[in-house]
Amino acid sequence: MTPEARLRTLEDREAIRDLIARYGPLADSGQAAAVARLWCDDGVYAVGGMAEAKGHAAISALIEGHVHQKLMTDGCAHFLGPVAIELTDDSAIVIGYSLVLRQGDKGIEPWRMSSNRWTLRRTPEGWRVARRDNAPLNGGAAARALLSFS
Amino acid sequence: MTPEARLRTLEDREAIRDLIARYGPLADSGQAAAVARLWCDDGVYAVGGMAEAKGHAAISALIEGHVHQKLMTDGCAHFLGPVAIELTDDSAIVIGYSLVLRQGDKGIEPWRMSSNRWTLRRTPEGWRVARRDNAPLNGGAAARALLSFS
Amino acid sequence: MTPEARLRTLEDREAIRDLIARYGPLADSGQAAAVARLWCDDGVYAVGGMAEAKGHAAISALIEGHVHQKLMTDGCAHFLGPVAIELTDDSAIVIGYSLVLRQGDKGIEPWRMSSNRWTLRRTPEGWRVARRDNAPLNGGAAARALLSFS
Repeated sequence: MTPEARLRTLEDREAIRDLIARYGPLADSGQAAAVARLWCDDGVYAVGGMAEAKGHAAISALIEGHVHQKLMTDGCAHFLGPVAIELTDDSAIVIGYSLVLRQGDKGIEPWRMSSNRWTLRRTPEGWRVARRDNAPLNGGAAARALLSFS
Repeated sequence: MTPEARLRTLEDREAIRDLIARYGPLADSGQAAAVARLWCDDGVYAVGGMAEAKGHAAISALIEGHVHQKLMTDGCAHFLGPVAIELTDDSAIVIGYSLVLRQGDKGIEPWRMSSNRWTLRRTPEGWRVARRDNAPLNGGAAARALLSFS
Repeated sequence: MTPEARLRTLEDREAIRDLIARYGPLADSGQAAAVARLWCDDGVYAVGGMAEAKGHAAISALIEGHVHQKLMTDGCAHFLGPVAIELTDDSAIVIGYSLVLRQGDKGIEPWRMSSNRWTLRRTPEGWRVARRDNAPLNGGAAARALLSFS
């Protein structure tokens, strides 16, 4: 690779990591429109067992919906783990965990732990999420299937 | 940007991420002076609801204090999440979560979950923390306010 | 440093971070051989208080063993934290946390929290783990000792 291509690869990976690191803070502060703008216009957020939202309005609605608003009122963190990234020109696959923690009556409770497989796309505005699949790590096959690149 | 400026941006972001990743291990092994040196000489660590420490001596004292030493004796991890970084020449704003876990009688307990907003400054010795604001994610406004860059 | 050396340093750190981010997803999806291949042929995985595995067959056997398979059946995440990296030409020391979460009868339980010190080596196939030391953060000296680079 040329130095230019190597620089660009590093910048792409850095941008992707930063994009994903913004999800939790935006979600937990209720910035629904900004959460949605992490996705492409036609992006999909498939929350295993709960919802499949397509497009900015639907993704915003997840944040504005009862389940998420209740979590925010209680106190919550959408705590993500480090991500593994496979980059191919203008798209990328990213794998990582998410852990939703909730302030409960008796202390802080891990409320949902999931595997996540993100498909990202380079757009004129930068990297955006084309699809995020999320599945609870409950021993079932769905969550395990998200943990492989192929 | 020139290739030189692009390289430097990547190096800055890498250095910032590495600096923040050192907080937990230094704190949980009781290296109080080394924790303090992550901050500028006049740096501030504002721990929401607990303390506001300014300068190396005061930050060291947090690590050497009763609350932290008791956590260490019990067994604890200051487990941080990935960070989102906004870099502007010689300063940066960084947003991320922290989760303090404690070994209790009945197992490992999430003891405190917080949002964090770090202001970093480039110094002759490298990137250092000018200010870290931390607030417990308990449903209140303080923690949410730390989750935005502006 | 020359621009070439600076690029290479960034690429090395990126590759190291990505390698470590793959451990959890591979382990929690039971890809035993792929987990083992994160290590050098003669690599060591020392799991404090549980096992010391040397070489690919022994590391695979940890993943295929009863304890890990039971965790997977229950639902688990080997959730790692961000890492601090010290790089020296063809080797690196990496420090970070790991938290194993398990789906229990009454909810998700943090099952094991540990400090980790990884020694990585550059090989013809890329960065690989020469040794990973892991120790439970239970207040004892073993886990704290892993939290320093020297």
